[in-house]
Amino acid sequence: MEKREKIADWFQDLQSDIISQLEKEDGKGKFGSEKWERPGGGGGLTRLLVGGNVIEKGGVNFSAVFGETPKPIQQSFKTEAKDFFATGVSIVIHPENPWVPIIHMNVRYFELSNGQNWFGGGIDLTPAFVFEEDGRFFHQSLKNACESFDYQSYNTFKETADNYFFIPHRNETRGIGGIFYDRMEAVDDKQFDKLWLLTQSVGSAFAPIYTQLMSKRKNLIWGEKEKEWQLHRRSRYVEFNLVYDAGTKFGLETNGRTESILMSMPPLARWESNYFPKEETEEWKSQQFFRKGITWI
Amino acid sequence: MEKREKIADWFQDLQSDIISQLEKEDGKGKFGSEKWERPGGGGGLTRLLVGGNVIEKGGVNFSAVFGETPKPIQQSFKTEAKDFFATGVSIVIHPENPWVPIIHMNVRYFELSNGQNWFGGGIDLTPAFVFEEDGRFFHQSLKNACESFDYQSYNTFKETADNYFFIPHRNETRGIGGIFYDRMEAVDDKQFDKLWLLTQSVGSAFAPIYTQLMSKRKNLIWGEKEKEWQLHRRSRYVEFNLVYDAGTKFGLETNGRTESILMSMPPLARWESNYFPKEETEEWKSQQFFRKGITWI
Repeated sequence: MEKREKIADWFQDLQSDIISQLEKEDGKGKFGSEKWERPGGGGGLTRLLVGGNVIEKGGVNFSAVFGETPKPIQQSFKTEAKDFFATGVSIVIHPENPWVPIIHMNVRYFELSNGQNWFGGGIDLTPAFVFEEDGRFFHQSLKNACESFDYQSYNTFKETADNYFFIPHRNETRGIGGIFYDRMEAVDDKQFDKLWLLTQSVGSAFAPIYTQLMSKRKNLIWGEKEKEWQLHRRSRYVEFNLVYDAGTKFGLETNGRTESILMSMPPLARWESNYFPKEETEEWKSQQFFRKGITWI
Repeated sequence: MEKREKIADWFQDLQSDIISQLEKEDGKGKFGSEKWERPGGGGGLTRLLVGGNVIEKGGVNFSAVFGETPKPIQQSFKTEAKDFFATGVSIVIHPENPWVPIIHMNVRYFELSNGQNWFGGGIDLTPAFVFEEDGRFFHQSLKNACESFDYQSYNTFKETADNYFFIPHRNETRGIGGIFYDRMEAVDDKQFDKLWLLTQSVGSAFAPIYTQLMSKRKNLIWGEKEKEWQLHRRSRYVEFNLVYDAGTKFGLETNGRTESILMSMPPLARWESNYFPKEETEEWKSQQFFRKGITWI
């Protein structure tokens, strides 16, 4: 079996595993299944859960696509390589309870027929209400996952996430960040193994982290006030994804599967003009965390 | 008084006039007032209404800004002209009742210190539920407004609106279109007067058109089903504005006033994956109108 098939198989198993763990923690919701094929080669499995106990809307998607390298990819990678292969798992979970954070994960592998290959991935958290202890737990878990790669990588990937998940027109971050690495090229076999180990480590870290956060916060009582703040924060999520997210933009511009790409949209979002929380409220305290450069651990 | 001051004055009067007519038809809501200044020169008056009888959220904004030509404008207009002047009125109204359409209007004038000047404008309608007679009335009123310019212009501007207010990744239009014209350069005084007449005609057409539509539909009873469809259609409004709208992108990229630019966002929007209305329902019938090239008159 080729390396790339092993990677795709591992990703597909990861998808199943994450889904079982999420369903177990949710206690009610079941992920639907939609298989799709890409006309040019390959396909994927979209798994969507709507209306669970905890998860209001969540998608856990796997894809492995290949074929002739599309023009925009050639341009983006400054290559003329004829064929490409790309596989990955992509997750966005929107919980109903405003005390439970939104989470996003992506792990991916990309290969060109000229022999070049790259890994990318990351996990980031978008709480409406920030619990400092959850933030510390989240970042510490990511640091642990990165240590399989090397001891400095968490700091680098954390900074990349801070810079990436930033909304310039609001001058705030989308949430409390996490880790993000993109287009890390495996220049030799050793580097390949290391990057693949890192990517597996990040993928495997997702379910334990998120089910713990779900479990800890899912039974907290919330009311209209908390829901309003959540819907407000979700509007920022929408703004980030539609205006800045590179994957979303690239997907929409290259005629990707719109429903899969925009699975990341929240089920409901609210825009209120000139809405700023009053000082010293819980909302205001959380807002103070939506900036770059916070040291969590 | 310079021409450009006359234009700005006329726009400011238009803003007041539209606001009185909208408040009268709404019957309850009052527009708030926020004056702002632009550090580099000029400023504006943002007028926002939230929670009216008919208007859930509506903005009617005036601005007149000038000063050193910002780099992105120089690039966009391929000019090195040192100074610029821009004035306009911009409107987005989100009604609460799903039977009442969203409306958008913009009229503007732009001038460079090298003597070049341009007009732009348009009105377009985004109903959740399409009433054919309202669509005909709307387009006929726009045609009438355009005839002050010339007899062919409606067709051209209507086609421009069809192409502009289109969401490629959904393969649908944002609503039922209207008219749109952009960067029409006044190459001599005669052309200037003609374009100014057109722009006044479009601006003046707004209030009579929209108050009539409000009046006709505001008392129709609606329930959860209609609200769901409206919230769904609003998500498409968000997608268009954040992904494609040139004014929004340009504003956000050039550090414009975020709250003014994103005043166009709906108060609440809903994303449901794989949501397509069942055949022969009212929602499905309306969906059939969200495409280019419909002849309304």
